[in-house]
Amino acid sequence: MREVAILGVGQTPVSEHWDKSLLILAGEAVFAALEDAGMKSTQALYVGNMLSGQLDKQNHLGAWIADWVGMRGQEAFKIEAACGSGAAAFRMGLIAVASGEIASAVVVGVEKMTDALPDETTAGLATAADADWEVIHGLSFISLNALIMRRYMHEYGWEHADFAPFSINAHANAMHNPNARLHLPLTKEKYLKAPMVSNPINLMDSSAIADGAAAAVIVPAESLHRYARVPRIIVAGSGAATASIAVHDRRDPLWLRAAEISAQQAYRQAGVGPEDIDLFELHDAFSIMSALSLEASGFAERGQGPRLGLDGEISIHGRIPITTRGGLKARGHPVGATGMYQIVEVVQQLRRQAGGSQVEGAKIGMAQNIGGSGATILSHVLVSKPPRT
Amino acid sequence: MREVAILGVGQTPVSEHWDKSLLILAGEAVFAALEDAGMKSTQALYVGNMLSGQLDKQNHLGAWIADWVGMRGQEAFKIEAACGSGAAAFRMGLIAVASGEIASAVVVGVEKMTDALPDETTAGLATAADADWEVIHGLSFISLNALIMRRYMHEYGWEHADFAPFSINAHANAMHNPNARLHLPLTKEKYLKAPMVSNPINLMDSSAIADGAAAAVIVPAESLHRYARVPRIIVAGSGAATASIAVHDRRDPLWLRAAEISAQQAYRQAGVGPEDIDLFELHDAFSIMSALSLEASGFAERGQGPRLGLDGEISIHGRIPITTRGGLKARGHPVGATGMYQIVEVVQQLRRQAGGSQVEGAKIGMAQNIGGSGATILSHVLVSKPPRT
Repeated sequence: MREVAILGVGQTPVSEHWDKSLLILAGEAVFAALEDAGMKSTQALYVGNMLSGQLDKQNHLGAWIADWVGMRGQEAFKIEAACGSGAAAFRMGLIAVASGEIASAVVVGVEKMTDALPDETTAGLATAADADWEVIHGLSFISLNALIMRRYMHEYGWEHADFAPFSINAHANAMHNPNARLHLPLTKEKYLKAPMVSNPINLMDSSAIADGAAAAVIVPAESLHRYARVPRIIVAGSGAATASIAVHDRRDPLWLRAAEISAQQAYRQAGVGPEDIDLFELHDAFSIMSALSLEASGFAERGQGPRLGLDGEISIHGRIPITTRGGLKARGHPVGATGMYQIVEVVQQLRRQAGGSQVEGAKIGMAQNIGGSGATILSHVLVSKPPRT
Repeated sequence: MREVAILGVGQTPVSEHWDKSLLILAGEAVFAALEDAGMKSTQALYVGNMLSGQLDKQNHLGAWIADWVGMRGQEAFKIEAACGSGAAAFRMGLIAVASGEIASAVVVGVEKMTDALPDETTAGLATAADADWEVIHGLSFISLNALIMRRYMHEYGWEHADFAPFSINAHANAMHNPNARLHLPLTKEKYLKAPMVSNPINLMDSSAIADGAAAAVIVPAESLHRYARVPRIIVAGSGAATASIAVHDRRDPLWLRAAEISAQQAYRQAGVGPEDIDLFELHDAFSIMSALSLEASGFAERGQGPRLGLDGEISIHGRIPITTRGGLKARGHPVGATGMYQIVEVVQQLRRQAGGSQVEGAKIGMAQNIGGSGATILSHVLVSKPPRT
């Protein structure tokens, strides 16, 4: 396979976009990415989205969006892996370009959630879990995560307050991201007093659903000499794995096996290890997921994820900066778009475009996108390289 | 890219499977394909499906099915392109294996439609059309096709009866396919007297929705010497294209531009032309679509598709046999699975396993899968080759 580079990125603000349809949001991100890449079009379009059929009464997003963005005729499909849809679409686009079958592609993650009634959205999100063995018993997606968090606290002796740094860090970083959903500084006191949602998960452990779209243009790295873009952003590693969809079927419900497999795949391809990663855009749908991702990806010992937060190691000046643009918690979580927001944000960091939350000297970044409560996990390692001479 | 081969195929009967969930159907097809290939597992699973979110309240089919079939851990995603989802998943799997990133994959198309209420299904199918500009005006999917058919008859001077051979041929061939939904011989008289659905489309112009799953195991052709399978079934050409999703936006609503582009791509890759195709599994969701596919794929002049039927050229003994196992009309149309049924059926023909509807001497077959009323179209050319010496 040939090496693949990210030539352009684009995003809409993550927000409640009452005046914009899913189509318009997707279009804005695609146009921004194409403009950033200095291209008018690509040979293919891949769409990451989870809920358009339920919430927008529209399937067939590939052709629909391709038509809208002036790519009528080009190959276009939707790829779905619940909240991991964005990175899944990115991986499929990556493979298509790497294979030589496709010369260039734009991948867009898009979701429009806030138009729907709250119970429609909750029911929609529950379709990421096992309908037959989890949802039918009344488990919502958040209550599944609450069971995991409660067990984790019991098993490893953490208090709820020990998870506060994950959310405080995310909110602090989002203050510097104009596209973030929430620009609200968070204190430990506010975190502890937040309304309970599903014990022990309170509102400040939870990411915010939202509308949004993020996109990237990918091309063969060998074609980069045609473009002025410096530095070159190379997709050095890509991994994808699954685990049991139902939490109760996992040998260890406190270990994200699919994160471990996919991160190891991505590390191996990139020839790096966790010690080389300068920043990590992880999937903090709930604060417990930050801890589990850090552990399974090799940044903390089993059961010790919260320690990194308490020791200040997850800030942009710490050992492993996470959620540097706000994460799912504060940038927001338009579910099928989230994986592409993560990719765009890693690119911003590697290009030194992260403003007040810039990680100094960042050269290698990782993005990790989760579908369901850990059933699908994708890890991507992006590397900034000097122009080829 | 390396050459890719189909090593195993499997399918469930197309039927009303009241006793089987979507998961069980998908599993039966995957297990049958793996057994046919002589394999226990593959490195990745790609799922073609359109409506599981709406009709089955289950997204995240990749992880869900991978878990069920014993492939927990492996990469698994769903690919969606409305009724073209099956072939879209096949193409993504094909590219993944051709690229070298994936060593082997199973692609399964699956849909479970008959459990839902009829108006849920009609609303679900309408999500293949443009929600904002077609569906909101009250157009259902069948009425869109009826507009196209009416215009076609007006433009080219055909009568409704001229489309009868498409349906009669499909029903005749389905009599020899134990997995077909309908085993009912159709006469011209029955065709003409069928109840009207959406003028001029009557019940015998329309495919039957259904439950079903079909799967194929794909591997690099270079690995085939490890397996005893003879003949080798090579995926010689693959093409995908889109057109405007809304019919009124097309320059010519009577021409399937995406069929033309994707068929030409597939022909070019395979180094063949329409004159070399021994059978053509086309997407006869409605009889008008048979005519349009034949024309855009190079088998008939513009406006002359019905002539092939009237002249007997579409039967298994004709110049271009179509719907040789019953087609969408009589094998049935479990929408997201249909593209994979077509692939499986072409493989059956090339292996001489098509029983009473075997096309004698078939060496090159084409499958064409359509999403929406022509907005996404994929064409695949499969070739039977003698064992490598």
